[in-house]
Amino acid sequence: MKQEDCIFCKIAGGEIPSAVIYEDEDFRVILDVAPAAKGHALILPKNHYKDLWELGEKESAAIMALAAKVTKAQKEALHCDGINVLQNNGTAAGQSVFHFHMHLIPRYEEDQVEIPWKTLSYEDGEMEKTADAIRKAL
Amino acid sequence: MKQEDCIFCKIAGGEIPSAVIYEDEDFRVILDVAPAAKGHALILPKNHYKDLWELGEKESAAIMALAAKVTKAQKEALHCDGINVLQNNGTAAGQSVFHFHMHLIPRYEEDQVEIPWKTLSYEDGEMEKTADAIRKAL
Repeated sequence: MKQEDCIFCKIAGGEIPSAVIYEDEDFRVILDVAPAAKGHALILPKNHYKDLWELGEKESAAIMALAAKVTKAQKEALHCDGINVLQNNGTAAGQSVFHFHMHLIPRYEEDQVEIPWKTLSYEDGEMEKTADAIRKAL
Repeated sequence: MKQEDCIFCKIAGGEIPSAVIYEDEDFRVILDVAPAAKGHALILPKNHYKDLWELGEKESAAIMALAAKVTKAQKEALHCDGINVLQNNGTAAGQSVFHFHMHLIPRYEEDQVEIPWKTLSYEDGEMEKTADAIRKAL
């Protein structure tokens, strides 16, 4: 169940390349290209669900365990002090792509991260290296 | 599995009163007394888990479906335009009570909510009325 012209359907399906941390039958986990902090990841279901209220039963049951697994690897690879798990529904809540996604945001003591965030940039190759480090810690 | 001196264990177990929206064997959902927006709810597991990395398998599998159910009722009762689902792990991420909890934050177009938020206050009786409205919409 993909939706034409949905960028997250294309990323989750591998049609558009991304820095992939994890993949299984139902999900692809990637690094956000406009991160709040380096290593900021997104869990994308492969099926198209607009938001939390459409999310499939199978994905709903699996996603928090996946979030726990990925954030544990982020902590290990990035040495961050904490993690925000954030999932926005509706424009008023800051949702900008209408394909359900869950943000996993590494946090550090004394960091200046605000949510919603000013986006950071990766240096050339840095995103791939970061993804690689997290993937190895899974 | 409760922890002595954990305020959320006492609230989830009903020893300390709260504005309850929903309860089942594993969870109690209440209104946050220091909300980002009126109707801001918290999902509390009854068992004590410090954070996402300790969360039990059963609760992990059930919590997103519960979040979908409660936020749908918040939308219906509060006529909000969107919802943030937020779960903080570690002091650096804004976690202040070390009993796993998930924030469900009603959002409105053009609201001034920032995360982390400046807390609002309820008028006398307003929290109970708000909880009642959401409970009826479940």
